[in-house]
Amino acid sequence: MNARDDKALSGEDRLIAKYFRPLAKHPGALSLNDDTAVLAPPPDHDLVITKDALVAGVHFFANDPPGDIARKALRVNLSDLAAKGATPIGFLLAIALSDTKEEWVAAFAKGLGGDADAYNCPLLGGDTVTTPGPLTISVTALGSVPKDKMVRRDGAKVGDIVLVTGTIGDAALGLALRRGAKWKLDNAQGEHLENRYLLPQPRNALATALRDNASAAMDVSDGLVGDLDKLCRASHVNVTIEAALVPLSAAAQAALKSDPKLIETILTGGDDYEIVCTVPPGKLAAFHAAAKAAQVAVSEIGTVAAGEGARFTDADGKPLTFARPSYSHL
Amino acid sequence: MNARDDKALSGEDRLIAKYFRPLAKHPGALSLNDDTAVLAPPPDHDLVITKDALVAGVHFFANDPPGDIARKALRVNLSDLAAKGATPIGFLLAIALSDTKEEWVAAFAKGLGGDADAYNCPLLGGDTVTTPGPLTISVTALGSVPKDKMVRRDGAKVGDIVLVTGTIGDAALGLALRRGAKWKLDNAQGEHLENRYLLPQPRNALATALRDNASAAMDVSDGLVGDLDKLCRASHVNVTIEAALVPLSAAAQAALKSDPKLIETILTGGDDYEIVCTVPPGKLAAFHAAAKAAQVAVSEIGTVAAGEGARFTDADGKPLTFARPSYSHL
Repeated sequence: MNARDDKALSGEDRLIAKYFRPLAKHPGALSLNDDTAVLAPPPDHDLVITKDALVAGVHFFANDPPGDIARKALRVNLSDLAAKGATPIGFLLAIALSDTKEEWVAAFAKGLGGDADAYNCPLLGGDTVTTPGPLTISVTALGSVPKDKMVRRDGAKVGDIVLVTGTIGDAALGLALRRGAKWKLDNAQGEHLENRYLLPQPRNALATALRDNASAAMDVSDGLVGDLDKLCRASHVNVTIEAALVPLSAAAQAALKSDPKLIETILTGGDDYEIVCTVPPGKLAAFHAAAKAAQVAVSEIGTVAAGEGARFTDADGKPLTFARPSYSHL
Repeated sequence: MNARDDKALSGEDRLIAKYFRPLAKHPGALSLNDDTAVLAPPPDHDLVITKDALVAGVHFFANDPPGDIARKALRVNLSDLAAKGATPIGFLLAIALSDTKEEWVAAFAKGLGGDADAYNCPLLGGDTVTTPGPLTISVTALGSVPKDKMVRRDGAKVGDIVLVTGTIGDAALGLALRRGAKWKLDNAQGEHLENRYLLPQPRNALATALRDNASAAMDVSDGLVGDLDKLCRASHVNVTIEAALVPLSAAAQAALKSDPKLIETILTGGDDYEIVCTVPPGKLAAFHAAAKAAQVAVSEIGTVAAGEGARFTDADGKPLTFARPSYSHL
């Protein structure tokens, strides 16, 4: 991404200069005037890097507000940094535009810049191209953690407590509503679920609490069932969760009441961007206190046991089985 | 990107485990088993980061060999690292697949892995999604340079010599041939030009020579005219180039002979992935020696003067003007 401010600017350079350069507040972005960004993580810190892609019609609706599309693209990456206990440094954006209307780009950049400021994660660089297909976005987010302190998936130990942030299933239900599902919900409940799909709430406020206390963590993006299973397998442990202990919003509870089969959508649908983590018993009080200070709700949902993988049960201990335990693109 | 090796794998996880995990040779990739990669640049080094996006039908042909598509996606990023004097660390890949045939993915990963090994730039992580549109790829490449030694665009000084690697215009001519252009060329010449479009030859072998000697550099991706102009404006200097001094391959010379108007395609078409740089006179001999040792051809094409921007002239000093000085997507 590079830009300059004069009359000889191409359309691409002009859009970048006008809408994206103001977001490039990191000195290492070199005002988007070079081939690359350049930076160093803070002394005695590791760099944490994640990259997600979003496609119109797959990860969001093409007619969603452009500012919200931008924010979702950044937030799904911020969620990965949060789960790893990392502090955001900045991000790179590659965008393949299918609609080059300037007002769309302006609204996209405005949403992006708002979140870049809110999460202290400035634009570092990237690439702007056009596509004959759907709008496609890739964000690469960089963060830092004190050396060797990244919270990995493979550190869960037998006896650790399993916790999850916020509420699970809202976004998957919101997506179903967007696709025309009808349940007994009032307007506010429907809106709550749809908003949770439109705009994730990454738990970056919890990063320090996780770094100081969690033995393992990951963000819940492909559904709690599949993601917790991945964490358990990486750690070579078992977790058995009674489904009723999984925190649900009032809206999700209402939807589930109107159709009990929705438990599968809730637990496996994905797009939650909550964090599931394990905390040793000796650090549990400190973790709860830190989460409270960070104003992030956390719920205990189980205990790590010997074994391999995650299981979910009903109130009688009977295993729940799911047609598709985890969101998969292929 | 995350993967595991068992029967419960989703299609996405299985493809990642089978084809991409073997490329994740950097320890910080955590075998693609976590949300993020984690690494630190070498002590007293800066991290250099670049990100490019490529869309089928825009940056390559959808029916190009999948291994070559993969290699081009990596190489256009490696070219940015080379121009900045950076040594590759690794890369992240986001791919939106439109064709999920396993043999395509296998061939793509094979090409990618070959180049990852050849350029010592292993896979760090990424994301695999599907798209109803054209195949879209974004690569984020990371490299390192000794602290504050990145070669920027804004360091050119009056009196420095302007040099360019390899030959200019081949890829733009190759693209025109792919689109049906007919010039008086023999088969080998046509193939040479088409191959230069299909598969860039990034000049990473020259990175150290640039770092040690160049006052400014950038990779030529949007055409020599526009890119050198950007370098000059970033450095607040002028360069006036006699077009006949720009190094051309025998094939490009033959095409130009059959149609002299092709000078515009050659100088502005882009996709060269060569490097244009400026070197102070006192370091010129050392730069030439280092380039020779690196087996990268470099040609002197001009001298930095006071002023602003780049100009190209014919043999009589008459300015050349171009309809579209630089490739732009918008």
